[in-house]
Amino acid sequence: MAVNLPLPIAANLKPVAGIELGHAEAGIRKADRKDLLVMKLAAGATVAGVFTTNRFCAAPVQVCRAHLEGLRISGSPIRALVVNTGNANAGTGEAGLADANATCAALAELLDCEPSQILPFSTGVILEPLPVDRIKAGLPQALANLKPDNWHNAAVAIMTTDTQPKAASRTVLISGQTITLTGISKGAGMIRPNMATMLGFLATDAKVSQRVLEHLVKTAADKSFNCITIDGDTSTNDSFMLIATGVAQLDVTEIDSPEYAALSAAVIDLSQELAQMIVRDGEGATKFITITVEEGASVEECRKIAYSIGHSPLVKTAFFASDPNLGRILAAIGYAGVDDLDVSRLDLYLDDVWVAKHGGRNPDYREQDGQRVMKQSEITVRVKLGRGGASATVWTCDLSHDYVTINADYRS
Amino acid sequence: MAVNLPLPIAANLKPVAGIELGHAEAGIRKADRKDLLVMKLAAGATVAGVFTTNRFCAAPVQVCRAHLEGLRISGSPIRALVVNTGNANAGTGEAGLADANATCAALAELLDCEPSQILPFSTGVILEPLPVDRIKAGLPQALANLKPDNWHNAAVAIMTTDTQPKAASRTVLISGQTITLTGISKGAGMIRPNMATMLGFLATDAKVSQRVLEHLVKTAADKSFNCITIDGDTSTNDSFMLIATGVAQLDVTEIDSPEYAALSAAVIDLSQELAQMIVRDGEGATKFITITVEEGASVEECRKIAYSIGHSPLVKTAFFASDPNLGRILAAIGYAGVDDLDVSRLDLYLDDVWVAKHGGRNPDYREQDGQRVMKQSEITVRVKLGRGGASATVWTCDLSHDYVTINADYRS
Repeated sequence: MAVNLPLPIAANLKPVAGIELGHAEAGIRKADRKDLLVMKLAAGATVAGVFTTNRFCAAPVQVCRAHLEGLRISGSPIRALVVNTGNANAGTGEAGLADANATCAALAELLDCEPSQILPFSTGVILEPLPVDRIKAGLPQALANLKPDNWHNAAVAIMTTDTQPKAASRTVLISGQTITLTGISKGAGMIRPNMATMLGFLATDAKVSQRVLEHLVKTAADKSFNCITIDGDTSTNDSFMLIATGVAQLDVTEIDSPEYAALSAAVIDLSQELAQMIVRDGEGATKFITITVEEGASVEECRKIAYSIGHSPLVKTAFFASDPNLGRILAAIGYAGVDDLDVSRLDLYLDDVWVAKHGGRNPDYREQDGQRVMKQSEITVRVKLGRGGASATVWTCDLSHDYVTINADYRS
Repeated sequence: MAVNLPLPIAANLKPVAGIELGHAEAGIRKADRKDLLVMKLAAGATVAGVFTTNRFCAAPVQVCRAHLEGLRISGSPIRALVVNTGNANAGTGEAGLADANATCAALAELLDCEPSQILPFSTGVILEPLPVDRIKAGLPQALANLKPDNWHNAAVAIMTTDTQPKAASRTVLISGQTITLTGISKGAGMIRPNMATMLGFLATDAKVSQRVLEHLVKTAADKSFNCITIDGDTSTNDSFMLIATGVAQLDVTEIDSPEYAALSAAVIDLSQELAQMIVRDGEGATKFITITVEEGASVEECRKIAYSIGHSPLVKTAFFASDPNLGRILAAIGYAGVDDLDVSRLDLYLDDVWVAKHGGRNPDYREQDGQRVMKQSEITVRVKLGRGGASATVWTCDLSHDYVTINADYRS
């Protein structure tokens, strides 16, 4: 059950000039489901990405990194991205690398380019060999239906345990140019991104230089996908890719330009929506929780505390139960690892309800006020540390019976 | 449902000369249940403890620390410990400290000693005022039934969401003296001790100097209570206390003595049993998991990886489902924060089954072998890092529907 996550309507998803999307049913893990996606880029497009920090990063992540690094040297642009679901191609060693490279080679041959101009992505079960022959066999089908207005099918094709496809669009007017941005993302478990989330793709028709795009993708990831957690498990396959097709007239070459500021704001805004969609569709989620930690000495300590709250199974089950058992939040703050935290300066709010004051129960706090907020489907936890001017926000969901059911049944 | 946790039989729990235990039904949170415990010590007893590192440490923990510190100065020995369940007296600010001190004062008056000679302990709900009047009213009842062979009732009196009391005894022959050790502990959620567990009390009739006892309690905690996790939540009230009544003839005054070595081995052995009992009775536990990480460059990195596996909700739900979805273990190793980990040197075993070899799936691994082990109620995960000679072990349990049920219902 997703939390206030509207189904994307295909007609509302705007094509981005310079990118075509084609999907296939390749039977990678299950029959009769879209499980393969090709995104074909215009010749002048730039691509930048951020990837998981998991040491067991998947073979496709390693290949993506190598191809993006090679691009700096060769100058050969990326021509296509290929995504499969059903199998993560992670924990697969040398054979996995060969499989990811074979996928690139097969698509490159069909598109008449070099394998190094292809970026591969996988998501699904870890530690199982990639059925690369099925992927190869599915590629012609995906290429046959390449078209610009295929974002909805693309969002469906990258789903695993997601209950709903995740996609959104924006148009913004920058320096007199109408710029389109459309993105898709998928979750829904093993989500505590560190540099990027499971899979997110965001395309714009603006022209953005490689250097600027690399800066922008990091900035956007840090303000969106790097602020969410479902279960604290950082995936082996996290990837967030930003694509600028360069078909529109807007040309962004400098970071300190008004054009960059406007484009960056739009990219961050859309990235946050896509990231929050992952949380809203978190495995078993029934509540969407925003955790804001303010008045910290550093952003890092605010994030530590926000994640400590967001990862606590006790806090998350209390949200599931709509039980204002708010001492659990204090406990999670206390063990977050901020060693010199003076709890006597700390205040805690649940939406507008002042729960804890100077580290103890607020004398004016009434249980029924906490209860009222806990029953909502969207809740903000606000912690004021009284230590400085830094702040951080993390988005998460509750921990329900369905999380256990989904993850106990995922492979079976 | 506890995992292979035998009910302690009162007759098997050996009295420790020099300590008497009395319990009461004080109605602290619920009627008709044992919720107050007094442990009265012989005049020559020494006491040492380790406490939670949570910055929101509870009022009684703060008072314990102060009284143990004061003991170094005044030399006045600890005469009694008092434990209440139903209310943690944590997140209660100045009022909570006053309540903990009032508890000590009331018991001191009844025992004709100073309040600083009493150590108070609380466990239960956080952020609610301690009903100190009910505790005061219950103390005479607890004192009225003080007796040496009351360990079983003591174990029952400190339970919260525990499904079974936890207690065990040992007798060891050291330097010709028969020494008795008996201990009790309680869990069962908010368990990821950092210096000590929720509540553990271990008494021996050996005579142990204060300095040696302080060394021993830290050593024992590090090898037992600090190696367990249920949900990764470090409690506000964790306390592990070691009591040496000094009634027996054995006198341990030096750390590098054969007597210390023998006593230390017995204390660690019993501490491990008590700590493992907490995991076996972890909230909703259906499996008991031992995670051993070997061949690390340091104990610290082995512990990081072991806890990363032990805290992963995805790994824990896979154990609950008996599903050998073992890629989740690799993912948890990968995000443990060991930045220079070379996964191509890593091997993974599930009991005797070699699952991953050189960072990839072992070609000889068969799913049915993994399945066989996953169905067991006790499972060992063994990770070999190929980096050095350090190792660490962590004990944990699975994550089941009952964990969610228990924690969604705990207060309601």
